[in-house]
Amino acid sequence: MTMSLSAELWPDVQPETARRLMLAGVEAFAQRGYHATTTRDIAGAAGMSPAALYVHFPSKAALLFAISRYGHEQTLALVENVVAKEADPVARIRLIVEDFVAWHARRHTVARVVQYELQALPEEEFEVVAELRRRIERIVREVIAAGAADGVFTVADPHIAARAVLSLGVDVARWYSERARQTPTALGKEYGSLVLRMLGAPAETQVTD
Amino acid sequence: MTMSLSAELWPDVQPETARRLMLAGVEAFAQRGYHATTTRDIAGAAGMSPAALYVHFPSKAALLFAISRYGHEQTLALVENVVAKEADPVARIRLIVEDFVAWHARRHTVARVVQYELQALPEEEFEVVAELRRRIERIVREVIAAGAADGVFTVADPHIAARAVLSLGVDVARWYSERARQTPTALGKEYGSLVLRMLGAPAETQVTD
Repeated sequence: MTMSLSAELWPDVQPETARRLMLAGVEAFAQRGYHATTTRDIAGAAGMSPAALYVHFPSKAALLFAISRYGHEQTLALVENVVAKEADPVARIRLIVEDFVAWHARRHTVARVVQYELQALPEEEFEVVAELRRRIERIVREVIAAGAADGVFTVADPHIAARAVLSLGVDVARWYSERARQTPTALGKEYGSLVLRMLGAPAETQVTD
Repeated sequence: MTMSLSAELWPDVQPETARRLMLAGVEAFAQRGYHATTTRDIAGAAGMSPAALYVHFPSKAALLFAISRYGHEQTLALVENVVAKEADPVARIRLIVEDFVAWHARRHTVARVVQYELQALPEEEFEVVAELRRRIERIVREVIAAGAADGVFTVADPHIAARAVLSLGVDVARWYSERARQTPTALGKEYGSLVLRMLGAPAETQVTD
């Protein structure tokens, strides 16, 4: 169970022991916060000794950085994939929101750590993650600005609009749980429609499937 | 400075010592998280002994509860005030969003503790806060549903729409800082317009002065 979940979350991380430690880290950080968690807690939850943890992650900060970096790389990849396969700003924004929202709902525990423990990262690692965040925000802002230039979006300030679009997705990680009324995919679709309206897309472009 | 800030944040809390402890608690919880903070840390930051803290708050959980409850009561009061003074659903939503967003921007450190440390509350205290949250969400949902019934809003699901509206406001606490491009008031106005569009309000009702 835990093994397949960690492989699903971090397919690129090897070996499985490292993934298992990342999963134990996510669970501990999400529950008690980064500062209240020790490497001993995490190693114990993964059924290992602290020494075995240090083989894979030299410090608690390195483990947080791995969780944070992979999470940001995954969401950046979602956004870049949409831009690669769609040219139209309306389609791009709809799919970006659908995928970004669904990711934050489906991976809400990981996403909470990714989004809310940033300030615990050491300065150099923080800068790596901050650059990934800037890239995500820049792409969304550019798609909105392109749509505004084409006359399909009406926005006073693409900067604020991009922030609001991403904000809606990020906050899903805070409130979403398995008890939510909607599946991650259905929620993504609903938010995609809300966002297109927010950006002033013409009504006829807002119809989904 | 600290004294006047704490009086501004919690005008109803007496004596000033209790407010000073709440402010030290907010700062410590926001920085390191609830679980990594001790009552000794908080008392020290407020220039008091742990024994002096216990005069006002019997436990760390009681201090978190005070911060959380006042924060929720303040945001509920904002929402209730708007509903008391405006009857029109469009005006109600615009003002609710303006005030709710501005509060989360202006009080972003308090708001982070209020919004992100809920799960640290003991069960009984959590239930008190959860009921305040349900009241806020219910009012917003009812205003949206009333607007939809009047034909001024077009929403597929008032439940999802209310969640999205509040989500935009809550997430401001995560990213807002004094370095933000907009004042809390200006951000609130911008978000008020975005939300009215999101709810499908007719263009002519969306104009702000």
